[in-house]
Amino acid sequence: MAGISLSRARQMIRKTFDAGKEARMNPLSAVVLDEGGNIIAFERQDGASPGRFQIAHGKAHGAVMLGMPGSAQMARAEAQAYFMAAANGAFGGALVPVPGGILLKDSKGRTLGALGVTGDTSDNDAVAGKAGVEAAGLVPEV
Amino acid sequence: MAGISLSRARQMIRKTFDAGKEARMNPLSAVVLDEGGNIIAFERQDGASPGRFQIAHGKAHGAVMLGMPGSAQMARAEAQAYFMAAANGAFGGALVPVPGGILLKDSKGRTLGALGVTGDTSDNDAVAGKAGVEAAGLVPEV
Amino acid sequence: MAGISLSRARQMIRKTFDAGKEARMNPLSAVVLDEGGNIIAFERQDGASPGRFQIAHGKAHGAVMLGMPGSAQMARAEAQAYFMAAANGAFGGALVPVPGGILLKDSKGRTLGALGVTGDTSDNDAVAGKAGVEAAGLVPEV
Amino acid sequence: MAGISLSRARQMIRKTFDAGKEARMNPLSAVVLDEGGNIIAFERQDGASPGRFQIAHGKAHGAVMLGMPGSAQMARAEAQAYFMAAANGAFGGALVPVPGGILLKDSKGRTLGALGVTGDTSDNDAVAGKAGVEAAGLVPEV
Repeated sequence: MAGISLSRARQMIRKTFDAGKEARMNPLSAVVLDEGGNIIAFERQDGASPGRFQIAHGKAHGAVMLGMPGSAQMARAEAQAYFMAAANGAFGGALVPVPGGILLKDSKGRTLGALGVTGDTSDNDAVAGKAGVEAAGLVPEV
Repeated sequence: MAGISLSRARQMIRKTFDAGKEARMNPLSAVVLDEGGNIIAFERQDGASPGRFQIAHGKAHGAVMLGMPGSAQMARAEAQAYFMAAANGAFGGALVPVPGGILLKDSKGRTLGALGVTGDTSDNDAVAGKAGVEAAGLVPEV
Repeated sequence: MAGISLSRARQMIRKTFDAGKEARMNPLSAVVLDEGGNIIAFERQDGASPGRFQIAHGKAHGAVMLGMPGSAQMARAEAQAYFMAAANGAFGGALVPVPGGILLKDSKGRTLGALGVTGDTSDNDAVAGKAGVEAAGLVPEV
Repeated sequence: MAGISLSRARQMIRKTFDAGKEARMNPLSAVVLDEGGNIIAFERQDGASPGRFQIAHGKAHGAVMLGMPGSAQMARAEAQAYFMAAANGAFGGALVPVPGGILLKDSKGRTLGALGVTGDTSDNDAVAGKAGVEAAGLVPEV
């Protein structure tokens, strides 16, 4: 069992940035976590605001820890804001429940980690990230 | 009065998992806390997402600390979300105010601790946990 | 690749407790973490002091996160106490650098997680944990 | 003056890894922070233990925040361990006072950020990082 290699994490981040650039998005930042929620790689593009690590990380960390991508977390937050507020506290602040937190799955549906993207609208973040995950040969759950 | 033994905590967790399995719920995770809010036992079933300890613990910890089961905490959160958000902060994040946080009582109504269950819908978590508490000969306040 | 199942984690904890009982140790507490440092199972024996989760968890979490068992962490702490104090801070307090934090390896030397044991002397904690790991068919790095 | 671009941060990390590989060091992890202490890029090599982000980050963050490279922090810790312990607390745990936290300077001596390296001995971490900084055309203060 190989998990996500650094090489694949790099590829995912670059392809995410390429997709953002092509669609004329704002500068993006992206983090790749392994299946245990630990950081493999992070990059912040020039011109992004300084706190982008925390947002990207919170999106990806919440996705792995709860096994729910950002859109599902957002639906839950819309229905029950206090639950997601409490979950944020339970994970020490490392949970941001909006699109851009993407589960990384293999072809058998097994979760290998998560990608967190931030910098443009949440929906655009998710579009760019989805392209990045697919370009790296993994299956995104957005 | 002896409090909750490890043997009884194990029994409660197993019976909670049995109830979940019988009702075809998702993989569950469950924690048992004593009357001081300290952890006696925790188990995460295979296939559950990695962050389930924090959610189960938050449910049980909030229940013991406030003397209110998850459903009562949820009612309070629906009426006054900022109170539960603040309580979450006051307890260092270890408070998740939804069903699945169950107070454990003896036949005289004395609180002996709490069970926290997570993995399926909050309501299902509570159903499975209630079955587990009763199977262990205690009185659940759900 | 299966990682450590709940069933195997239970077995490890029971066998650790059996080894402690046989050697007339104090009541023990033990936690099993997966390779990402997330909790699979924890148990605290009757009669143990209430804060044993935090100690057991800190031993196991430090071992996984640094890839160093408790004895190696202790050697580093003896040589350079301020490094381990700082590492404790970097991991939010979840690092206790003494024996009883045991890396769990498969036959090929791959780390699958960690066992944390506390309750008796640190050396005895490690002896009991080593027996538990071996009884569960894994290779302990103590 | 433009600060450290993502492109330069990448270069620094790659060259640090190259230097580590050439010297047959353990798998390394490296983070680049800007002059405000915010993360630009991080990478963890395959085979490194999962908690390497926290150590690399603590080394670099302490260096930027105090304006002192790791070796100077270590000297202070050897003389006055309680000061560095307190500083670790003051910075929320994000300060690890050993070699491998390297200040990044331009040719005029202005601090542009820091590189944090971990994975081998602290001294080797610093050797690899120094090579990476120089390869990227900056002046390391180790």
